[in-house]
Amino acid sequence: MSHSPARSGRRADARQNAEKIVQAAVACLGRNAEASMNDIAREAGVGRVTLYGHFPSREALVEAALIRLLAQGNEVLKAVDLTGDPRDGLRALVESGWLLIAQAASVLQAAQTALPSGRVQELHAKPEQRVHDLIRRGQAERVFRVDIPADLLASVLHHILHGAATDVVAGRLDPTDAPRFVAEMALAVCAVPPATLGTD
Amino acid sequence: MSHSPARSGRRADARQNAEKIVQAAVACLGRNAEASMNDIAREAGVGRVTLYGHFPSREALVEAALIRLLAQGNEVLKAVDLTGDPRDGLRALVESGWLLIAQAASVLQAAQTALPSGRVQELHAKPEQRVHDLIRRGQAERVFRVDIPADLLASVLHHILHGAATDVVAGRLDPTDAPRFVAEMALAVCAVPPATLGTD
Repeated sequence: MSHSPARSGRRADARQNAEKIVQAAVACLGRNAEASMNDIAREAGVGRVTLYGHFPSREALVEAALIRLLAQGNEVLKAVDLTGDPRDGLRALVESGWLLIAQAASVLQAAQTALPSGRVQELHAKPEQRVHDLIRRGQAERVFRVDIPADLLASVLHHILHGAATDVVAGRLDPTDAPRFVAEMALAVCAVPPATLGTD
Repeated sequence: MSHSPARSGRRADARQNAEKIVQAAVACLGRNAEASMNDIAREAGVGRVTLYGHFPSREALVEAALIRLLAQGNEVLKAVDLTGDPRDGLRALVESGWLLIAQAASVLQAAQTALPSGRVQELHAKPEQRVHDLIRRGQAERVFRVDIPADLLASVLHHILHGAATDVVAGRLDPTDAPRFVAEMALAVCAVPPATLGTD
């Protein structure tokens, strides 16, 4: 199929507008989780017709902003060396993951409100897979507990990290202490429990 | 001040209607987190005018339903014996708390969507206080870790329990395994870490 130069020019403009809108959504929602479609259109320098032409609802646009941040985050996490002791790997992964989540906290909050329940966690499939693979290896090497399924350990790490991020947003947790505490708690959950645990 | 019998009769009717509406909200939202004001009015057997007279918005009614469940849950938790070893106390508290959260999962989901961010956790002040006091005692007795503040440990337990409840709702976690796993992870987070933890 061949297209007229005018049509492919319009398509390039459309792509450029979509890109501007997603970047504006990341910026606006990053400053204010309740940013409106109008706020985002203004930031992107496009009209409402163009905005809604690309993203028919605020939900669709919040999702696009989150997908963008997750893709960028996945690139960062790819660079974390997970080849050594799984405990060191987990600490490094949690600390990097924590920074990404803290930077994305406001967009994540917008997504929790705007997207259907469970969708935010679904969109985390790639980083979750990375954590999951590391936990499985740690279990195989018997440095992580095997009495709780890897799926559940990975899910709990997700809840600990995201919960701590909401604690920072709410002013309940000092962001400078958070990475170390979060990594400690992640290790505590995954590590083989000491023989003295509990009294029964 | 004295009131006419007619007026106090109307006030008694109003109280009765408010009570019927809150009970209907707990029941409807318990079956379906997206239940509408109309669904709840129908279940309560009251008209829309009466419903909105008592609860001007769905948000107000979802909050009233959650407050009701939390008050009932607090009575259950009061009965848990926390006087012995803090680790046994934590296990008992988490297992009871888990049952309450699992029963309330659908109403909690409605609340997470309908109420402003942070409000659901604010409303948990009483059960949180119970967990918090137990953690402090465990820290004082040196069976719980002291390198992480009690506030943060309590908050992480909140996130683990509520996260696991969403995992059950989403079909990612078997509800029969959940109480044991959740209690194990709660203890793992709070217990004094083994000397071998980490490699540095």
